[in-house]
Amino acid sequence: MKTLLFLLPFVILSFGIGSFRSEASAQVKKFAIAIHGGAGVIPKSMADSVRQIYVDGLTEALTLGKKILSDGGTSLDAVEQVIRLLEDNPLFNAGKGSVFTAAGTHEMDASIMDGRNLECGAVTGVRTVKNPISLARLVMEKSRHILFAGAGAEAFASEMGVERVDTAYFFVERRFEQWQKAVEKNETRLDHSDDEKPTEPGDKIKGTVGVVALDQHGNLAAGTSTGGMTNKMMGRVGDSPIVGAGTYADNATCGVSGTGHGEQFIRHAVAYSVSARMKFGGQSLQEAAQSVIFETLKPGDGGIIAVDRDGNIALVFNSKGMFRGKADASGLFEIKIWE
Amino acid sequence: MKTLLFLLPFVILSFGIGSFRSEASAQVKKFAIAIHGGAGVIPKSMADSVRQIYVDGLTEALTLGKKILSDGGTSLDAVEQVIRLLEDNPLFNAGKGSVFTAAGTHEMDASIMDGRNLECGAVTGVRTVKNPISLARLVMEKSRHILFAGAGAEAFASEMGVERVDTAYFFVERRFEQWQKAVEKNETRLDHSDDEKPTEPGDKIKGTVGVVALDQHGNLAAGTSTGGMTNKMMGRVGDSPIVGAGTYADNATCGVSGTGHGEQFIRHAVAYSVSARMKFGGQSLQEAAQSVIFETLKPGDGGIIAVDRDGNIALVFNSKGMFRGKADASGLFEIKIWE
Repeated sequence: MKTLLFLLPFVILSFGIGSFRSEASAQVKKFAIAIHGGAGVIPKSMADSVRQIYVDGLTEALTLGKKILSDGGTSLDAVEQVIRLLEDNPLFNAGKGSVFTAAGTHEMDASIMDGRNLECGAVTGVRTVKNPISLARLVMEKSRHILFAGAGAEAFASEMGVERVDTAYFFVERRFEQWQKAVEKNETRLDHSDDEKPTEPGDKIKGTVGVVALDQHGNLAAGTSTGGMTNKMMGRVGDSPIVGAGTYADNATCGVSGTGHGEQFIRHAVAYSVSARMKFGGQSLQEAAQSVIFETLKPGDGGIIAVDRDGNIALVFNSKGMFRGKADASGLFEIKIWE
Repeated sequence: MKTLLFLLPFVILSFGIGSFRSEASAQVKKFAIAIHGGAGVIPKSMADSVRQIYVDGLTEALTLGKKILSDGGTSLDAVEQVIRLLEDNPLFNAGKGSVFTAAGTHEMDASIMDGRNLECGAVTGVRTVKNPISLARLVMEKSRHILFAGAGAEAFASEMGVERVDTAYFFVERRFEQWQKAVEKNETRLDHSDDEKPTEPGDKIKGTVGVVALDQHGNLAAGTSTGGMTNKMMGRVGDSPIVGAGTYADNATCGVSGTGHGEQFIRHAVAYSVSARMKFGGQSLQEAAQSVIFETLKPGDGGIIAVDRDGNIALVFNSKGMFRGKADASGLFEIKIWE
């Protein structure tokens, strides 16, 4: 009843505006979402056909997230559902598209955090879970713990009954082959890198995925999912499953998801430090994000996406590119790779 | 040559003071060390004989650390060597004294950080490594990564050739039995707990260990080692191997090691947040430590030890007790459990 009374002014306003209402009209409260599909050496010489495949993948993800939020859904659902979509898309280094470890296996990490109460969940080193982000959410909601590793995470997945896949799932599919063929035409440039040894074509431009959202209820959430570094040593844990490093969300400040050189994100507690700069240092979201990326980190380390409690969005990176997108209740909808 | 000129005034002063020099005299530069052996429900009704065993264990550890630092050793060596001693002591929940997981196994975690350059290393879920803190240091010094989990950490241990032990090592020994007999006499009170189900006698008062040190060269280091929570689910990762949560060190601010409810330490990025409060909020070490323990965390969550770049020491906890000690170049040498 309380809820209905609360909605009354909006209902009246809505009738008043009639058919002129738009996304920016008064009855739609503030919401905002930012997504990323990884940061790194993304050559501008990329063929248009390749670029378009990435833009399409990011557009599909951002559209889903915006719809969930504009329909009044929670930021936590937006984060989980959009990351699931990105995990299922072989273009990105998460879920299905996860890169190979040095041992020729796939080890995936994910984390999610609820800004309302700082509840969080994460998994590292999972090998048979189709959507690690959903397992991370179950760790948050159904266990007393925050982070499960390896066999313990797999055992928890069995207990929860989440969808499992054969390890072959992480390898082939029509869309992956189609993408790889497109990439191969552009191969010499895609292998170009300033700071890493060349690996397989394509892997260079496949990144960790992440989503940060503010919902109409005023709640922030953030999540990150990855297949890790190509050729990483077995058991290496990066920043993505580390709350405070790769992911953070606090309604008092902001939500953050990072992508890049994981060790740098851990040693500088990057995701939490954006929140800490706002909370203890009084910086704005944009100032905090810029300070961390351009002062704390080194050029080429990567980037972050962040949304604050007022719906401001910061997408900041110091690598050559970052697959990213942002949308909000005012009608903003933007996908970018470079600049 | 620059170094020699810098030392000249101290050398002259030293000759001037002659045989009256003490630990506090000018030729011994500032150093400081803090240690902990866990925080939690430590009953004041503990028999004197039991209390004395803990005090002896902590005194031995603090004595070693102080000696390393007063001899001009590095904070990193002090942290590693003192933690090794605590790991070898069955009184504490780390190394030899590690508690049992729900599966009846032992899974140990450790991390170490160098405040000079923010280099860090950590391991989680190791089962056969005698001194996890030394493996963490090798991860820092000999790998490109920061954190290795489970089988990956064991594989790295094999590669490095660190000392391994049979899993039976983590169970019996004369000293452990002696300690347990002493504890059993006091059993009914040791099982008392406000917020946890009773477990085996003794486990209740066995805690994670940690050391933070400032050496005469002005460098901070911190480390933490644990056997985790009694009856924890397999693969659960707590705060001890998470740089930013259980351990942090930055010459610009302070070094920190935490002990307590690991999930709380992760969600609040406790160790890093002490540094962040100093760096971004301008708080003193003591203010920052008090804010985190009494404002951010909940009563009973645990405690931290911290040393800042000026040699100030903060030992703060919100549990019923914390095994702890502190020493510095001025002659301070103190071991405490309650208060």
